[in-house]
Amino acid sequence: MSTVRVTPPDDDVRTEAAARLAGLATPVGALGRLGEAAVWWSAVSGTCPAPAPSRVRAVVFAGDHGVASYGVSAYPKEITALMVRQFLGGGAGVAVLARQHDVALKVVDLGVDDDLDGVPGDVTAHKVRRGSEPLHLRDAITADEAVRALAAGRTIADAEIAAGADLLIAGDMGIGNTTPSAALIAASLGLPARDVVGRGSGVGDTALAAKEALVDEALARVGSRVEDPTQRLAALGSADLAAQVGFLVRAAERGVPVLLDGVISVACALVADDLAPGAAAWFAGGHRSTEPAQALALSKLGIEPLLDLGMRLGEGSGAVAAVPVLRAAAALLGEVSLLEDVLAAGSDGSAAAPDHDG
Amino acid sequence: MSTVRVTPPDDDVRTEAAARLAGLATPVGALGRLGEAAVWWSAVSGTCPAPAPSRVRAVVFAGDHGVASYGVSAYPKEITALMVRQFLGGGAGVAVLARQHDVALKVVDLGVDDDLDGVPGDVTAHKVRRGSEPLHLRDAITADEAVRALAAGRTIADAEIAAGADLLIAGDMGIGNTTPSAALIAASLGLPARDVVGRGSGVGDTALAAKEALVDEALARVGSRVEDPTQRLAALGSADLAAQVGFLVRAAERGVPVLLDGVISVACALVADDLAPGAAAWFAGGHRSTEPAQALALSKLGIEPLLDLGMRLGEGSGAVAAVPVLRAAAALLGEVSLLEDVLAAGSDGSAAAPDHDG
Repeated sequence: MSTVRVTPPDDDVRTEAAARLAGLATPVGALGRLGEAAVWWSAVSGTCPAPAPSRVRAVVFAGDHGVASYGVSAYPKEITALMVRQFLGGGAGVAVLARQHDVALKVVDLGVDDDLDGVPGDVTAHKVRRGSEPLHLRDAITADEAVRALAAGRTIADAEIAAGADLLIAGDMGIGNTTPSAALIAASLGLPARDVVGRGSGVGDTALAAKEALVDEALARVGSRVEDPTQRLAALGSADLAAQVGFLVRAAERGVPVLLDGVISVACALVADDLAPGAAAWFAGGHRSTEPAQALALSKLGIEPLLDLGMRLGEGSGAVAAVPVLRAAAALLGEVSLLEDVLAAGSDGSAAAPDHDG
Repeated sequence: MSTVRVTPPDDDVRTEAAARLAGLATPVGALGRLGEAAVWWSAVSGTCPAPAPSRVRAVVFAGDHGVASYGVSAYPKEITALMVRQFLGGGAGVAVLARQHDVALKVVDLGVDDDLDGVPGDVTAHKVRRGSEPLHLRDAITADEAVRALAAGRTIADAEIAAGADLLIAGDMGIGNTTPSAALIAASLGLPARDVVGRGSGVGDTALAAKEALVDEALARVGSRVEDPTQRLAALGSADLAAQVGFLVRAAERGVPVLLDGVISVACALVADDLAPGAAAWFAGGHRSTEPAQALALSKLGIEPLLDLGMRLGEGSGAVAAVPVLRAAAALLGEVSLLEDVLAAGSDGSAAAPDHDG
């Protein structure tokens, strides 16, 4: 996966969309971030105005993390498998949001430390391994496993695109996964642990300090080897994170836009943009995370998220919550009157007979 | 309208909803502001869990403002009437958002400085006058007009509630209306103009300075008379703002929740809460305005808005944009699994047979 070519979103359409936005019968800039999102959506859709995303598909990448046994999480790793079953049952947060916003949802097990007996075969079809190694002590997964996981993510993206997706979302499930995500962001941006480590699902000061020390130890252990994105995923990531990277790369390569979620999603997006330069142009931001690393990563990618609701649930929930906001942005650019039409109607009097059924 | 009684939202239901939120199978606080919004929604709906709002009705209150001729706006007052026709034609921003989010939308003319020939009779049925007086020179409207506008707003709220509303939104249309709104907020909170005046639809530094001077002149002119809310509306407001206040008061009195919009909406909410103490408990915040006065008013009312998208369109658009976010909050509280059920399923193995059709 060394020579991935990404075609940028259509620049002519972007220009056309920006001109249409400026020509709407609203004060300049009055739509705020909705205006910017609408222009992005037109560019990635290749048409202006572009219909609002109606075939949104989200995939939750599940896996366990060796670091979870080292005091970095508020929850035991057994929760991961339990939650995979919750996704299937429809009672997980992102499952509720997906129903509410008409988003198709799938969960895939790349590295859950459980055999998940009884779950449907398509959930575990791409499993690379059970769990991962503690990344401060040794590589989380092997380079071969990272390559397989990247390929699995590409295959999963292809399947979602074949199912008709006009917008993709990648979510995560895995106790302990904010630690490898912080490590990946630190390695991607060349930052120390103290700049990137946060409280994840809600750890206290002791666990926060443990997490920071562990990430610093991991960064020192791996050294400059992590300049290579695949090595970075093997050393500091996991099968589920590597698969999410492959999914994002493949989406960009196929020209299908992605709405990013929180810190895990954005950590993967950074690596995806390293593997496939220009990929980030296909990504928009769903939700601002409470994790400090996410803001740093988004800023590097030049992405401003749509929502800032203080959510820290993961699962892709922040991205799915933002879907109606992106739909609203697209509708505004497509359906708000153009100033030239309003003024023409005002001067010839035809606005006196408004269309009531419109 | 001096002795309006507001019954608070159901405190037992609020307690029940907060307990349910704490018992969801998510990390504590992981739903962020969606969790808080869901608890509020349960309390104002009087049931837990409460179904998501499905009969949302928005009313845009239109009117012109005498101050518009004094260099405080980037647009001429003729735009107000033109925009009323845009609402009816479906091409205004809030009309697009209302269609997108299944919100019923109505526009009512309380004080547009135009006869609006040819528009349907129900739009102008509540008209109190054409325009308003320049509030820095003399009272914007008479006390009698303020009383009539307040009553009109109550009647309009009753009609929307009769039509089945489970959530109300009040929007605004009127060139120059951020100036009376800033004046009302300054008078309500006892603040000088420099703390409340913003750039509205996008004025430059000269107009901003003119606006600030004008609001200070108005505040000095009216003195302590504006301690009375009706006098405040007459002296510094307008017919459309007074009607919006009546609408908000009546909604609270009837126990129907309201999603507030930007600075105009929040200025009216402050006066409504003065007229009917406790009314604000029935209000939630839709969108953070770029106007500084809105943050001050929301803070006084104890309300944190759901969205912060940099929109400054008015029209109720920020509130309508937030409707799917509130619906998502309600769905999460109602449908996310309870931790006790997940743990019970995990220990008896029944989670091994998830419901795929769920």
